[in-house]
Amino acid sequence: MRNLKLTIEYDGTNYCGWQVQKLKAQSLKLKVKTIQETIEKVLKKVLQEKVKLIASGRTDSGVHALGQVANFKTKSKIPVKKLQYALNSLLPADISVHSVEEVALDFHSRYSAKSKVYRYIIANSAYPPALARNSLYFCSLKLNLKAMSEAAKALQGEHDFTSFCASASSCKDKTRTINAIDIKKIPLDNNNNFLIFVDIQANGFLYNMARNIIGTLLEVGKGRLSGKTVKKILLAKDRKLAGQKADAKGLCLLSVKYK
Amino acid sequence: MRNLKLTIEYDGTNYCGWQVQKLKAQSLKLKVKTIQETIEKVLKKVLQEKVKLIASGRTDSGVHALGQVANFKTKSKIPVKKLQYALNSLLPADISVHSVEEVALDFHSRYSAKSKVYRYIIANSAYPPALARNSLYFCSLKLNLKAMSEAAKALQGEHDFTSFCASASSCKDKTRTINAIDIKKIPLDNNNNFLIFVDIQANGFLYNMARNIIGTLLEVGKGRLSGKTVKKILLAKDRKLAGQKADAKGLCLLSVKYK
Repeated sequence: MRNLKLTIEYDGTNYCGWQVQKLKAQSLKLKVKTIQETIEKVLKKVLQEKVKLIASGRTDSGVHALGQVANFKTKSKIPVKKLQYALNSLLPADISVHSVEEVALDFHSRYSAKSKVYRYIIANSAYPPALARNSLYFCSLKLNLKAMSEAAKALQGEHDFTSFCASASSCKDKTRTINAIDIKKIPLDNNNNFLIFVDIQANGFLYNMARNIIGTLLEVGKGRLSGKTVKKILLAKDRKLAGQKADAKGLCLLSVKYK
Repeated sequence: MRNLKLTIEYDGTNYCGWQVQKLKAQSLKLKVKTIQETIEKVLKKVLQEKVKLIASGRTDSGVHALGQVANFKTKSKIPVKKLQYALNSLLPADISVHSVEEVALDFHSRYSAKSKVYRYIIANSAYPPALARNSLYFCSLKLNLKAMSEAAKALQGEHDFTSFCASASSCKDKTRTINAIDIKKIPLDNNNNFLIFVDIQANGFLYNMARNIIGTLLEVGKGRLSGKTVKKILLAKDRKLAGQKADAKGLCLLSVKYK
């Protein structure tokens, strides 16, 4: 038996996320396409064996990944390079396998993860960019990045993030550690139009946590919330106080770090 | 009467280019969607007047633009900022107007242009990138960039580019000046995978010239053609000798320069 680790890029636009919660799919009576099922089907074809793909975590419908990590156990002896080639030949163009590695049998994409980085991209510009429109959130109102960076500081460190966790979450321990929130500005042109990258690195993310934090920081950037209020929202442990969750399409899982 | 100049970004994936040659469309008996018609329809709605949009040049089906320039004459007195806002509200998300400026009445997007820059993006990587898949050409074979840069030098300067012009072109004077061909390498990750930008600046481009040059440089990068042969192909003035035209989706009109 081998344990194989995939590093995966995907454009989440046309998928209902990595995996749909069964109850949700059943209640909606929908036949939905997910990243996980799409890759599992191709793995079955290549390996002639049904395998279960375990990801570092689910990503929501419309959220992207540059470095999602998933592993599965297999009896197959196919060389890793050959498997990567076969997967990329058979997968749709919006999913790509960056690498296939054999790892220790006790490696688990979710439980072995030490930290993750999510990037949120905002086009803070007079016009909505056309080419990367599915990978960013467009905001024409000039954002106050200094205020956003200040507010982000309040969220760094170990905290109970109940205020930023979807109320539907069944997770009991809502304590996580945010190692860093970095806000970068990249010029789009010479006319004061920018892309803003908000990178959040944490030891784990609660359900919708990244999007709820970004939604709140956007309110700060628009001048509707102060940095002090963000601190109060965090301490209140009440989801109703934080900003709306940010649009899924701006979010991308950049990388997952292991020991 | 005012003359208004638009700077336009578009994702060409879902369009039959800027404008379809009438004969071609008639012979195919196709009802095709073009960038020009799409914008003209929205302009008519906003201005309550039918206008004719003149671009710096046609772009092929599937080719993108970050800085296409087009102008039109109108009796409307609508302020330029208001017009930009209205256009971006009504245009589909894959077309975006970066700016609207009032220019001299004798300004002509095509005839007044001094030079243009086209960028071709190649993903030279072990895997096909998923997120920007519609804006790049994927090549897993490691390209010899030094050889490509050497060959590119042979094309710089004023030449008769017949060998790189589509045979269907009706243009008689095939002399153009390439000011520069710059080849840049941008890391995609830490695993020796790269994006390669090939930027071609010229005073004008013949029909399919950018794609035919890139197709030929790709042959050089793959070791199938030498730099010396590229020089010979140029001098031979024979389209049959140069490489195949490169895939449209990797090409983007970056900017058009005027006096």
